[in-house]
Amino acid sequence: MSSFTHFNEQGHAKMVDITEKTDTVRTAVARTSVMMNKEIYEKISNRAIQKGDVLAVAQVAGIMAAKKTADLIPMCHPLMLRGVDIQFAWDVEEQTSRYQLLITATVKTKGSTGVEMEALTAASVCALTVYDMCKALDKGIIIGPTYLVEKTGGKSGHFRREDK
Amino acid sequence: MSSFTHFNEQGHAKMVDITEKTDTVRTAVARTSVMMNKEIYEKISNRAIQKGDVLAVAQVAGIMAAKKTADLIPMCHPLMLRGVDIQFAWDVEEQTSRYQLLITATVKTKGSTGVEMEALTAASVCALTVYDMCKALDKGIIIGPTYLVEKTGGKSGHFRREDK
Amino acid sequence: MSSFTHFNEQGHAKMVDITEKTDTVRTAVARTSVMMNKEIYEKISNRAIQKGDVLAVAQVAGIMAAKKTADLIPMCHPLMLRGVDIQFAWDVEEQTSRYQLLITATVKTKGSTGVEMEALTAASVCALTVYDMCKALDKGIIIGPTYLVEKTGGKSGHFRREDK
Amino acid sequence: MSSFTHFNEQGHAKMVDITEKTDTVRTAVARTSVMMNKEIYEKISNRAIQKGDVLAVAQVAGIMAAKKTADLIPMCHPLMLRGVDIQFAWDVEEQTSRYQLLITATVKTKGSTGVEMEALTAASVCALTVYDMCKALDKGIIIGPTYLVEKTGGKSGHFRREDK
Amino acid sequence: MSSFTHFNEQGHAKMVDITEKTDTVRTAVARTSVMMNKEIYEKISNRAIQKGDVLAVAQVAGIMAAKKTADLIPMCHPLMLRGVDIQFAWDVEEQTSRYQLLITATVKTKGSTGVEMEALTAASVCALTVYDMCKALDKGIIIGPTYLVEKTGGKSGHFRREDK
Amino acid sequence: MSSFTHFNEQGHAKMVDITEKTDTVRTAVARTSVMMNKEIYEKISNRAIQKGDVLAVAQVAGIMAAKKTADLIPMCHPLMLRGVDIQFAWDVEEQTSRYQLLITATVKTKGSTGVEMEALTAASVCALTVYDMCKALDKGIIIGPTYLVEKTGGKSGHFRREDK
Repeated sequence: MSSFTHFNEQGHAKMVDITEKTDTVRTAVARTSVMMNKEIYEKISNRAIQKGDVLAVAQVAGIMAAKKTADLIPMCHPLMLRGVDIQFAWDVEEQTSRYQLLITATVKTKGSTGVEMEALTAASVCALTVYDMCKALDKGIIIGPTYLVEKTGGKSGHFRREDK
Repeated sequence: MSSFTHFNEQGHAKMVDITEKTDTVRTAVARTSVMMNKEIYEKISNRAIQKGDVLAVAQVAGIMAAKKTADLIPMCHPLMLRGVDIQFAWDVEEQTSRYQLLITATVKTKGSTGVEMEALTAASVCALTVYDMCKALDKGIIIGPTYLVEKTGGKSGHFRREDK
Repeated sequence: MSSFTHFNEQGHAKMVDITEKTDTVRTAVARTSVMMNKEIYEKISNRAIQKGDVLAVAQVAGIMAAKKTADLIPMCHPLMLRGVDIQFAWDVEEQTSRYQLLITATVKTKGSTGVEMEALTAASVCALTVYDMCKALDKGIIIGPTYLVEKTGGKSGHFRREDK
Repeated sequence: MSSFTHFNEQGHAKMVDITEKTDTVRTAVARTSVMMNKEIYEKISNRAIQKGDVLAVAQVAGIMAAKKTADLIPMCHPLMLRGVDIQFAWDVEEQTSRYQLLITATVKTKGSTGVEMEALTAASVCALTVYDMCKALDKGIIIGPTYLVEKTGGKSGHFRREDK
Repeated sequence: MSSFTHFNEQGHAKMVDITEKTDTVRTAVARTSVMMNKEIYEKISNRAIQKGDVLAVAQVAGIMAAKKTADLIPMCHPLMLRGVDIQFAWDVEEQTSRYQLLITATVKTKGSTGVEMEALTAASVCALTVYDMCKALDKGIIIGPTYLVEKTGGKSGHFRREDK
Repeated sequence: MSSFTHFNEQGHAKMVDITEKTDTVRTAVARTSVMMNKEIYEKISNRAIQKGDVLAVAQVAGIMAAKKTADLIPMCHPLMLRGVDIQFAWDVEEQTSRYQLLITATVKTKGSTGVEMEALTAASVCALTVYDMCKALDKGIIIGPTYLVEKTGGKSGHFRREDK
């Protein structure tokens, strides 16, 4: 059974030493969602085909947040991100009033630790931005669940989440 | 039907003018959760009664993130936060293997716009930090759902989420 | 003849004391421009009526930069911005091959110092972002001139630039 | 005809994947200027030979801004800068009342993307800081034009701006 | 005996609620020092009367750091600083080879909590910057002691350190 | 006699060019201390064996500050830190009323410049955080002296401070 690696012998947290780890290409894909009401769904969608665009702002926020991950997550190592992409998809079912925006963030680097946190942070801040821009219409919006979909590279190798 | 206030007449986003809004005391409470496996639950809990403490790190991260909200969310107004508190609770049911950490962030200010985004950001980054410190043990951890529980102050008045 | 107020008696810079200044509504409008070739002009314009949009990204960057002004400009006082808007206009003359994007940033606050630097910073970073997103097509893009168009509020009163 | 590389297939912006690009030495030189009146010119110049020094502050601001470029420009890749230098020169012509400060920023790295944006950002923030420190004397100061003078390294090779 | 106010009832840290505190003018003065060898002392001093100037850079760093205090110190409330000044003095005694730079940072605000941390942070980062710029000459430089000299304003009233 | 390398030929500061330096493993150890009264010492110590913990917060602050070093120290090169650890020890002597917390920060990277500034910054901000969390009890707390204990790697080789 492995143990926490974030704590030093005094029981306090530390940023673990990764000097010995080698630089490899690493990717991570994270997903979250935003569950909203019909009115907001329609307004976002309509904007999306005009020039104003909630998703455009949210996407910029997500990408910028990926670059701030090590500044937000205390024990996270700084990394030079080499690519960040955020994709949107709608999961809509009128009968059950489900209007759900799916947000998928993909992050890539060449470095000595993985980019799971960067992908999760990008997705989370992207969703928070959607919330911010729509909260005047409905404060009942729900974000998440948020989880890692896939990661490649590094010693722990390939991870692929089973469909939930 | 109200309309989006974040867009200017060119259809682009803007930070809406709140010069005319008055400074009042405002609070917001947001909640998220971290669903983990039994091993991680036990390790976090045991730490919690020793001096090393995943939750202590996560809590510091959440509080610091609240202060960075306007730097993360593009159209969010900067605010002088006057109080931030993060509480943890466990929702554990052995039979169904549910080991869930509940995170509740409360933010308070005296200002001209609400602190919903600050509370949601604090809760989200707190959960991401728990994920970061435990991900070596299990990459299947799930964050959220994340939502606003309550807000007070401001023109839109009191909001209290119905139990879901 | 007034003297520099940013220097202390040792000849070093300081952030001047504004404790005695009163909080009033203050606005500032700054302008810059991006001079590009025809190909880039057409690509930006076409995007602008589809959903991908150089200007949407640049605008988000400009608004976020306004909030970072005191972090960028050493002697600038931190301020709680209450509104930021960025407008675009095209100044195009086919015969002389002038394809110029005009960027106008308007910033508003209620505080004890003006927001000229915030408006100038928003406009500048907005233009730099346009440059960044188009530089693969042409490295000869020119930004500026950048200048203050108007300011209101504060002891120095109203300033309005004569047309240049 | 090349196409925008900053957009994904959904038409939204992304940080382009540079994992395959190799690390080479890269330099960029950018230039801007600050056009001021005679009074400000004389005050800055006189300070320059005493110990208080507008240019010293502006230069520090420019160098620090170069390090923040990826935090300001949304689609810009983070880079480990290896050298930043800012030089000043005066272009003064009494007869035509031209008092212009020329600012030249040189940035160097060893990495997988160029440093044009870092040089342009350094020059821009350096000029904005000069403006900030002199604006109490004259709000009519003009910044720019701002442009890339030269770049070396990378696939696109050497670029050298023709004299304008 | 007063108790820690930074901890909530779960024993975790929190940013204490200061909503009820009133806005008053508050000042704080902090001091630190940098103990160096004769060579460095002479080089800094000589620069100081030319235009290049270690102290000018250190001072800018200290002022900018004051503005970042709430971003560095987890439980520190954000504050709108209204004035920051850093003064240098030399304490030199050739016989005992004491070459000590004294750094005094004064911070002022009008707000609901004190500015002790801002003054201490400004002084500390100013000293660290002197260290950074001189460390190629001697790694044995010593910073501090660092302490609060005086504070005014707020419920706890006036504090003035006895000469040590 | 070596000369300052942080100044360009105009006498202004610059970030020195390290393009030619090779990437090697580098470590630095810095130390500071916090001198407090008996009451604070006892409160911190007692917390330390319960779950609330001044040192846990201070340690997180120190680690996060290490990652911000290049943002705080103007001429400091950005670096990808690969490990940060902060250790605490008490130096207590009841008879002389000495209650001193020793803070030792160790930083590691693989890069082209040393990590002395990162270790010194981590130790300093860690100490400032202890101050912040205890200042309601006593404003007479003293931080430091702060100094480099050891460094390895790089052209200048091994440095080890003699016991003071």
